[in-house]
Amino acid sequence: MKHHSMKHHSMKHHSMKHHSMKHHSITEIIERKRDGHAVSSDELRWVISEYTADRIPDYQMSALLMAIFIRGLSRQELATWTEAMLLSGEVLNLDHIPMPKVDKHSTGGVGDKISIPLAPMVAACGVAVPMMSGRGLGHTGGTLDKLESIPGFRTRLDRDEFIAIVEQHGLVLGGQSESLAPADRRIYALRDSTGTVPSLPLIASSIMSKKLAEGIDGLVLDIKTGTGAFMKDEASARALAETMVDIGAAHGTRVVATLTAMDQPLGREIGNGNEINESLDVLADAGPDDVVELTYHLGADMLLLGGIAADRDEALASLHNAVSSGAAMEKFQEVIVAQGGNPAVAEDRSLLPTAPLRYEVTAPETGHITGCDAYDIGVAAVRLGAGRSRKEDDIDPGVGISLAAKIGSRVDRGDILAVVTYRDQERLESALPLLERAFVIGAPQPTPELVIGQVA
Amino acid sequence: MKHHSMKHHSMKHHSMKHHSMKHHSITEIIERKRDGHAVSSDELRWVISEYTADRIPDYQMSALLMAIFIRGLSRQELATWTEAMLLSGEVLNLDHIPMPKVDKHSTGGVGDKISIPLAPMVAACGVAVPMMSGRGLGHTGGTLDKLESIPGFRTRLDRDEFIAIVEQHGLVLGGQSESLAPADRRIYALRDSTGTVPSLPLIASSIMSKKLAEGIDGLVLDIKTGTGAFMKDEASARALAETMVDIGAAHGTRVVATLTAMDQPLGREIGNGNEINESLDVLADAGPDDVVELTYHLGADMLLLGGIAADRDEALASLHNAVSSGAAMEKFQEVIVAQGGNPAVAEDRSLLPTAPLRYEVTAPETGHITGCDAYDIGVAAVRLGAGRSRKEDDIDPGVGISLAAKIGSRVDRGDILAVVTYRDQERLESALPLLERAFVIGAPQPTPELVIGQVA
Repeated sequence: MKHHSMKHHSMKHHSMKHHSMKHHSITEIIERKRDGHAVSSDELRWVISEYTADRIPDYQMSALLMAIFIRGLSRQELATWTEAMLLSGEVLNLDHIPMPKVDKHSTGGVGDKISIPLAPMVAACGVAVPMMSGRGLGHTGGTLDKLESIPGFRTRLDRDEFIAIVEQHGLVLGGQSESLAPADRRIYALRDSTGTVPSLPLIASSIMSKKLAEGIDGLVLDIKTGTGAFMKDEASARALAETMVDIGAAHGTRVVATLTAMDQPLGREIGNGNEINESLDVLADAGPDDVVELTYHLGADMLLLGGIAADRDEALASLHNAVSSGAAMEKFQEVIVAQGGNPAVAEDRSLLPTAPLRYEVTAPETGHITGCDAYDIGVAAVRLGAGRSRKEDDIDPGVGISLAAKIGSRVDRGDILAVVTYRDQERLESALPLLERAFVIGAPQPTPELVIGQVA
Repeated sequence: MKHHSMKHHSMKHHSMKHHSMKHHSITEIIERKRDGHAVSSDELRWVISEYTADRIPDYQMSALLMAIFIRGLSRQELATWTEAMLLSGEVLNLDHIPMPKVDKHSTGGVGDKISIPLAPMVAACGVAVPMMSGRGLGHTGGTLDKLESIPGFRTRLDRDEFIAIVEQHGLVLGGQSESLAPADRRIYALRDSTGTVPSLPLIASSIMSKKLAEGIDGLVLDIKTGTGAFMKDEASARALAETMVDIGAAHGTRVVATLTAMDQPLGREIGNGNEINESLDVLADAGPDDVVELTYHLGADMLLLGGIAADRDEALASLHNAVSSGAAMEKFQEVIVAQGGNPAVAEDRSLLPTAPLRYEVTAPETGHITGCDAYDIGVAAVRLGAGRSRKEDDIDPGVGISLAAKIGSRVDRGDILAVVTYRDQERLESALPLLERAFVIGAPQPTPELVIGQVA
């Protein structure tokens, strides 16, 4: 399968640079960043390359990461740092696929299953989507975990298989390849234990180094803000969006970022099987308003980036057509088959895992829902077993929460607010206080906007 | 020798605290310091204790050190941090010695041999001096290296020997014990490779944790400022002095710090054998003015701290008497014998090592010396072999520089500025440009003050 080959850019890069790359002093570089001075592109490339080759120890890298956390990275430094991480491993080359290649990434939220209906809709319109997703951690779910609740579905694909599937179907839904941006993986693990995770440049470069290694022509970002997002305030979310768009521009890849609200969960379903169910609803033209709105919004961005729609209206029309014609659902089923899953879930939802027990959370008073806290509901889902507190935890694909009311709903005392599907009484009891606290009932208020803004 | 025993405070501390010391999260502590928030005393003690016990890895400690470097430590945090380092190892107990116990520490300069005449003068007056000194590194010399140029003199003393000598003679001149403040030694090594050395709280706590572990009643500090000092500007030197005095106060040990100029070398001799020669001159009442001035100044501070002089005049009179009576020289000879050296050096200076070759640096023009750069002369001495560029370098005790002119001297063209004693032509040639550059000749200027100020 010669035409499936990935170029080993990183190897080429190292061997090409080997003789021209001067030796630098890591302590001098740390000192410079520590004091807020500029570090040269050569030096940053050298740091990433030496760290990846185990010639800079963790204790020096962590001191540098802390200095970067506090002092920041300039635009130029950030572009170089990201590029160096991207070049630390393999870089996918999908040039032989004639379609435009566009991926989508979300910074993560509660009930955020958008990628799952989005990718087949876009692929059905003629844009190839070589999607690499992650697992849930903390209060948010992960696309891989959700997909794996489809019986038989495999997300662990090797390089050749990943390329073969996107080549044949214009769509693949895989996990992050270990061979892409290994520097990022090591740096992320170090950040996790050294208090250097929530840094704008380090977050932006971590995401972008992996995405840009996918060999895509364009990238659509969904940057969440609100209680259920990692970026709680809009200003930080906007800064992150701008930073990632900048990194894309420096790399020569077009990036469009949309800021969206994550104060209440997206849609009505939270939990792995639950969210596949709701994703299938969207593909069957029967999804809830907010999920449909955002899927079409981001889908239009992807078609526009792919250059296969003249304007947003044309893009939205294509997407509607892909759904109403059944082409999007068919595309999803094609890929389910290609990745070992049972495509019958599309028609028979009882094939999805479901825990045996039900509990109804009811309204303690009459009024309007004014709060439906995404963070609390996300943590409640984790406590039920839908997510992970630690990386090594197993998840339960059959547990979840179905929201019967969201912000703006009018409820009478005793009405059902949410139905919990659970397996274990103790876990239910640990989740309930959070679920009950999540709902706030009061006087009617204007419904907040889902799409807040766009950065391109 | 039961009465020589050191109390194992650290062991006691650990076992006492073992059950009450809560487990803390190192990443949370790093994050708090990173964001400029306070870290509790309990947490700081826990960090030092866990790091010393190898339960916190270097990469987390280095991230914390960088956060401390940039955010600083509050007064309370610094006192706790120092105390925790001090308690990480043995703490000397010299309570059975009836005399007051006072030590002196200098932040290091060029030609700074003050400790050598100072310690026997003070001891001859009745204040015990359990002095632990260091080796030269960088452009500065070290007291241990200088003492070892006395034939036979041993500075590597074990604990019992160290205590026995100060008990018997009221004076001991040893190296830093490995069992004192081991946390400081490990943290210092980590700082050295992670760009976190020149931090005021980290420098202050490093010095003070070792000094306070000596079991002394008082400490006199000589904080250098100027081209030949580690602290180039007076404001930083003063801040360091204030910080160390504060740490002493928090520990309950009186500390007096003097700020002194280090723009030109102290005295006329630079090099190990050379500086012992000049130290013996001071004890023989024939030292150069600046060395004599500073030795008496710091000596008076030590007698006052020791409570054996009513005021500065009385202290100075005691010191003069110790020198003119020969008691100070005798005390030095006593300790030379106790530490295995040949006391005849006091009368026969030819017993000191001397390199075979001489080179005279002469004045290129007529005028007044307005500059005699301590840093350049210090580096020139290192290049001759008197000091170390790296920790593992050997030193040559017989090479050195004798200054024939200092700031304020009037010289005619061709007059000798300095005599270099050397062994190797190549080393001489690498040193000469620095020596020639060090001297600046111009119009007469007022001689700068040596003692700049005092913090107590």
